Amino acid sequence: MPDHDVRMRGFRERTDLESALEVLRSCVGPLEEESVPLLQAMGRTLARDIISTRDVPSFDKSAMDGYALRAAETFGASPTDSIPFRLMGEIFPGDAGDLEGRPGELGAPEAEPGEVGALEVGPGEAVRIMTGGALPGGADAVLMAEYATDDGHVVLAHAPVVPGRNVARAGEDIRKGEKVLERGRVLRPQDLGVLASIGMMEPKVTRRPVVGIISTGSELVEPESPLVGRRGRVVNSNRYLLEGLVTQTGGEALWLGIIPDDREALHTALEAFHGDILLTTGATSVGKEDYLPGLLAELGELLVHGVNIRPASPLAFGRLGKALVVLLPGNPVATMVGFDVFVRPALQLQLGQREERWNRRVRGRLRRKLASALNRTDFARVRLVGNGEVEPLRSGGAGVLTSVTRADGFVIVPRDVEGFEAGTEVEVYLY
Amino acid sequence: MPDHDVRMRGFRERTDLESALEVLRSCVGPLEEESVPLLQAMGRTLARDIISTRDVPSFDKSAMDGYALRAAETFGASPTDSIPFRLMGEIFPGDAGDLEGRPGELGAPEAEPGEVGALEVGPGEAVRIMTGGALPGGADAVLMAEYATDDGHVVLAHAPVVPGRNVARAGEDIRKGEKVLERGRVLRPQDLGVLASIGMMEPKVTRRPVVGIISTGSELVEPESPLVGRRGRVVNSNRYLLEGLVTQTGGEALWLGIIPDDREALHTALEAFHGDILLTTGATSVGKEDYLPGLLAELGELLVHGVNIRPASPLAFGRLGKALVVLLPGNPVATMVGFDVFVRPALQLQLGQREERWNRRVRGRLRRKLASALNRTDFARVRLVGNGEVEPLRSGGAGVLTSVTRADGFVIVPRDVEGFEAGTEVEVYLY
Repeated sequence: MPDHDVRMRGFRERTDLESALEVLRSCVGPLEEESVPLLQAMGRTLARDIISTRDVPSFDKSAMDGYALRAAETFGASPTDSIPFRLMGEIFPGDAGDLEGRPGELGAPEAEPGEVGALEVGPGEAVRIMTGGALPGGADAVLMAEYATDDGHVVLAHAPVVPGRNVARAGEDIRKGEKVLERGRVLRPQDLGVLASIGMMEPKVTRRPVVGIISTGSELVEPESPLVGRRGRVVNSNRYLLEGLVTQTGGEALWLGIIPDDREALHTALEAFHGDILLTTGATSVGKEDYLPGLLAELGELLVHGVNIRPASPLAFGRLGKALVVLLPGNPVATMVGFDVFVRPALQLQLGQREERWNRRVRGRLRRKLASALNRTDFARVRLVGNGEVEPLRSGGAGVLTSVTRADGFVIVPRDVEGFEAGTEVEVYLY
Repeated sequence: MPDHDVRMRGFRERTDLESALEVLRSCVGPLEEESVPLLQAMGRTLARDIISTRDVPSFDKSAMDGYALRAAETFGASPTDSIPFRLMGEIFPGDAGDLEGRPGELGAPEAEPGEVGALEVGPGEAVRIMTGGALPGGADAVLMAEYATDDGHVVLAHAPVVPGRNVARAGEDIRKGEKVLERGRVLRPQDLGVLASIGMMEPKVTRRPVVGIISTGSELVEPESPLVGRRGRVVNSNRYLLEGLVTQTGGEALWLGIIPDDREALHTALEAFHGDILLTTGATSVGKEDYLPGLLAELGELLVHGVNIRPASPLAFGRLGKALVVLLPGNPVATMVGFDVFVRPALQLQLGQREERWNRRVRGRLRRKLASALNRTDFARVRLVGNGEVEPLRSGGAGVLTSVTRADGFVIVPRDVEGFEAGTEVEVYLY
């Protein structure tokens, strides 16, 4: 049997969280861009600023149902002193502004203002117009329907209107040349609407990082294995946890299998990896069978091994060719904290996302004391219990995944703080 | 030309938001369930409570590196008065608890405790055990490695250990028969991990609602159309907005096309619909060409037409066979508010989600006054500007989609309130 001290020694020194994150940031950058069809772009990250090549709206249009006319001609109009206008026609949304046809009908001409057949409002004239209708040439305002009457031939204006009133100007929403959305933005449904309205049907987004996942541990079996339930064997749940987290963060998960605690097998798997990030779970501490940190140092570069956080302190990461390799601890809760603290930022850096957008947080008051050790950054699972109150969960150890399913998020207890008293306002990082 | 009053009359009466939502709730319920492979289950809604058919862990295991032994035999041990044990072997994670082989190796036997070949700790005996290793029969505690030394044959215990210490008991995380996750839950990555650990590889989830989308308006053109840019024509951005929102909420979007303001064409489209929810944009007010409310009343049942909110007041909804039909206003911001207020709840009810989980909210202080009219529920777009401050966006009208891309969420100004002063703490419903 091997010597006890070799197997069971601890970490000589653990890196502080902030230093470890700095190292991480220095070794990941944005991936290449690619085009995607707009309908598949939701949740993707813009690789470039979006500059509009159009005005939106593309033409002056009426913002009200009413009458398009020359505003100056309404000055002095009142209910007792109405001003008459000749009613020249009617414009519906979609009309080009001509008198002849409707665009929904076959063969309707599409006249531009000034063209033959285009509606022009001359002195003493008015055109009935519906909301969204293109403002006819010559008109500079829309008098709301409430302030006028018409008999089909003559419109009586009962109130004045100032130039520009009730008109949505071309470019009022988006101006040609304007920056509409910024590089690094994660696209939301409303962004898709805006992109469609400026005709950006294949936006450039950052390629999705390919994230390989390896679970190590001779005790692990696949959930479908006949060995499930055998004494000593443990179902590998980390694969499902990690595939979910990777997908949620915008990466593409690539399952590489369970690999036993066997140096050769792990060596082969590391060498064979071609992707952007490789995640492993287990075998990252300093025990006899914790081959991964040594292998990473041998095949690539081990940058950090052991971080001064809890849980997930045995976490390590480094470079392997162009890939980032993160060695996550095998306990599911530690796996998840390790992902949140190191892998999510790495993915978001590769996606080119803005750092301040990373985490959605809420503030709340602790319902009871949250204990923590000094000189170590703690990630404590908490539940939001309404009324702005935050309840720390009694976790029962890093292996207890159900403490994470019950949690709504986590609270970070900094290194220089020995926990928080009940009633303290804390910031909750939401899952 | 038709009579002015027919075309331009307003709504006689608008339904209050709360009453409208009550009507909505009374006419949508959960859809059927279906099984999905675990890796595709993220974001899906559980159709049934999940009851574990297993203990997790499935066996007693060591929570520390150390020595499995009979706790009572360590009583009285101290550094100056060590107690010796015969070292009988070594157990690694994955070992079944036998002396012969390792599970990673070919032909390793899988012994159950009590079987021939299984490791049993007898009186005066100890077994070296690694974290995660199966506790051998006869042992009832693990003495941490720090409190013992061994020479390969004899272990010296330098401290006592109480029964059960450093042992994770079978069922400690999840007990057989325990409810692990609740019906109505939207599955997160950590839930996938838990489901895998109890072997639930094809959970029952609620079927995704099929949501048909129709854009109406003779002015609308597809973004790729050669008519884009023609005077009077507007690119249909609502399709992209709505497909994004539907997908995000867990529905399956079904694009049915742009239909001009033509009663026959709309009649045909409504009759042909076979899905769970039909969304239309435009033609829902009381104007001459607003055919949809009348058609819905004719072909199905018009339950609400006009809601006392802003924007989106012309919104209507009703039943068409088994489907819910929501007639959304055509202005993009109104479309989005209408979706948030009525369609998202309807989808979440069809998915069987718990109502209190619907909206993620944060609280913050208004940076400036948020004006609003009395007797109307307002949905005001706001931005989170850091420091817990909330900035109302000057919107420039319901047509201005960019006000929604700039917004982080909205604040609801109730009917009986005339806006909020600067400094008021408000609740922001996040997008």
